[in-house]
Amino acid sequence: MRDVAVIGVGMTKWGELWEKSLRDIFVESALEAVKDAGVDKIEAMYVGCMTSGLFVGQEHLGSLLADYLGMGPIPGVRVESACASGGIAFRSAMFDVASGAHDVVLAGGVEKMTDIGGDGATFALSTAADAEYEVYNGVTFPGLYAMMAVAHMDAYGTTREQLAAVSVKNHANGSKNPHAQYPFELTVDRVLNSVMIADPLTILDCSPITDGAAAVVICPLDKVKEYSKNQPVKVLATAHATDSIALHSRKDLTWLGAVAKAGEQAYAQAGLEPKDIDLVEVHDCFTIAEVCTIEALGFFEKGKGGASAESGESAIGGRIPVNASGGLKSKGHPVGATGIAQIVEVTKQLRGDADQRQVEGAKIGMTQNMGGTGGSCVVHILGSE
Amino acid sequence: MRDVAVIGVGMTKWGELWEKSLRDIFVESALEAVKDAGVDKIEAMYVGCMTSGLFVGQEHLGSLLADYLGMGPIPGVRVESACASGGIAFRSAMFDVASGAHDVVLAGGVEKMTDIGGDGATFALSTAADAEYEVYNGVTFPGLYAMMAVAHMDAYGTTREQLAAVSVKNHANGSKNPHAQYPFELTVDRVLNSVMIADPLTILDCSPITDGAAAVVICPLDKVKEYSKNQPVKVLATAHATDSIALHSRKDLTWLGAVAKAGEQAYAQAGLEPKDIDLVEVHDCFTIAEVCTIEALGFFEKGKGGASAESGESAIGGRIPVNASGGLKSKGHPVGATGIAQIVEVTKQLRGDADQRQVEGAKIGMTQNMGGTGGSCVVHILGSE
Repeated sequence: MRDVAVIGVGMTKWGELWEKSLRDIFVESALEAVKDAGVDKIEAMYVGCMTSGLFVGQEHLGSLLADYLGMGPIPGVRVESACASGGIAFRSAMFDVASGAHDVVLAGGVEKMTDIGGDGATFALSTAADAEYEVYNGVTFPGLYAMMAVAHMDAYGTTREQLAAVSVKNHANGSKNPHAQYPFELTVDRVLNSVMIADPLTILDCSPITDGAAAVVICPLDKVKEYSKNQPVKVLATAHATDSIALHSRKDLTWLGAVAKAGEQAYAQAGLEPKDIDLVEVHDCFTIAEVCTIEALGFFEKGKGGASAESGESAIGGRIPVNASGGLKSKGHPVGATGIAQIVEVTKQLRGDADQRQVEGAKIGMTQNMGGTGGSCVVHILGSE
Repeated sequence: MRDVAVIGVGMTKWGELWEKSLRDIFVESALEAVKDAGVDKIEAMYVGCMTSGLFVGQEHLGSLLADYLGMGPIPGVRVESACASGGIAFRSAMFDVASGAHDVVLAGGVEKMTDIGGDGATFALSTAADAEYEVYNGVTFPGLYAMMAVAHMDAYGTTREQLAAVSVKNHANGSKNPHAQYPFELTVDRVLNSVMIADPLTILDCSPITDGAAAVVICPLDKVKEYSKNQPVKVLATAHATDSIALHSRKDLTWLGAVAKAGEQAYAQAGLEPKDIDLVEVHDCFTIAEVCTIEALGFFEKGKGGASAESGESAIGGRIPVNASGGLKSKGHPVGATGIAQIVEVTKQLRGDADQRQVEGAKIGMTQNMGGTGGSCVVHILGSE
């Protein structure tokens, strides 16, 4: 496979963006990525978006956004894998470049979630679960992750305070990220005493509903100098795996099989081990999700992830900094954009451009983006050249 | 780019499939394609689907269908470009194989459109148009294509009877296709006297609402013998282009710029001209769409496509057989599956397996699949080895 590098990144402020439409926020981020890369053309683009049909009544985003970006008639493709759509967009763009079809390709992600209101958003998000066997019976994502949390607490003694510490750590990081939706600090007490959503998860264990977009520009590694003056960030591995999307089909509710599988494949491709990774952005849609993913990726032993934030091991400056960006919890979670924003963060970290949240000496970073309760997972490893 | 070949195809009977769900119909077609190819594994899969979120409240199809196909934990990706989603799924699978990531990849398409009812389906389909500037003002697809028809009649003297003849020709072909939703013949009078939908288009100018799926298996051309005993069909070209998705943004309502662009690129890649193509499957979502696409692809001069069916030139046995399968009009149009079904038909034709509708001596076939009113278009050229 032809080696690929990231040469530009773009991301705007995330939040409740009432004055802007989906096309506006995508184009802002995409133009920033194009400007950052310094390229004068884009040959193809991939857009990760989970469900713009349900959120804003608009499909056919590949064409719409290529047109609004002023890049038509280039190929524009929308890809979807629920909340892993952004990671899949990056991987699809990689395959395009690696196949030799194009050189300079944009991978973006977008979701405009607030316009539809809370009940509509809950339904739209539920389409990442099994409609016929889970949603039909009344369960939505906070309930599914609550079951995973209870199972983890029961099996491994993980405590309510340990889960809250994940949220506190991610908000501490996010308070240093100017793009974050909720850039403020929390305390364990505040998390524990916030509104209960699905026992044991309170609202401050849950990532928010967010409007946002992010974009990156990639090209073949051996042609970077032809297209950009930026320091390239090399893609060392791309891996994607699936699992049952229905939680009840799994033997162990606390084990994310698709994450473990994608992680193994990524480590093998890059010839690396967990100890070689300097920072990781993981999919903390709920606090328990961060605990389960860092176990499945091998950063913590099975059952030992609960203590990661409380002990300081996953903080910036700790053994393995997890979600230096603030993660989904503080930065926000516009579902289709999240996977791309993870690539943006790791690229900035490897370039040394992460300001107050910089992981010192970071040379190798990982991203882990997943759909549903882990029915799909995409893992990338990036390295500074 | 590594050369790719189609080694297996699968497609079940299309129609109003009340007793089967989306996952059922996809798996039926996919298993048929796997069996036809004779492979004992699938390494990755791509699913074209326009808007299962709106039609059946289910996204995350890549994982869901990989699981139900019994192929998990392989990567499963859903791609979308409105009614061109199937063509994009095939192209995405090609890039995957061409990049060297995998060898044996399944490309499928599916749409379950009838469960939601007529008004719901009309809204779901409208999301292929520009939600903020077209749909908001009340126009849906029959209205948009009616404007294109009126413009073509005005500019080139195309007649109502000529449009009806497209429907009559496609139903004549579809009557020989056991998979077709409406395998019966029509007359020009019956088309003209059927219910008016959007002047000048009657209901028999419009493709139907359909439940259906289709799938193909591909692998590297130089490894065909390793995986399959079938006669391979080589992919000679893949091209994708976009245009504004809003019809009012175009200078000429009768000219499909994305189709022309994708066609040019495909001919250039294959080193072929329109006269070299033995048959073509085009996107006749409305009769006027077939007329415009065969002009944009260079089979007829601009403005001369209207007479194609009436003159017999586009019939099986004519100068350039168009929609030997029955096209979207007679075969049905489960939007995400249509682009894959076109590949299925051309593969069967090039293998000599098209029974009563066989185009004699067919060696090179083209597929043209588009989204919306031509906001996106994918063209493939296939050749018998």
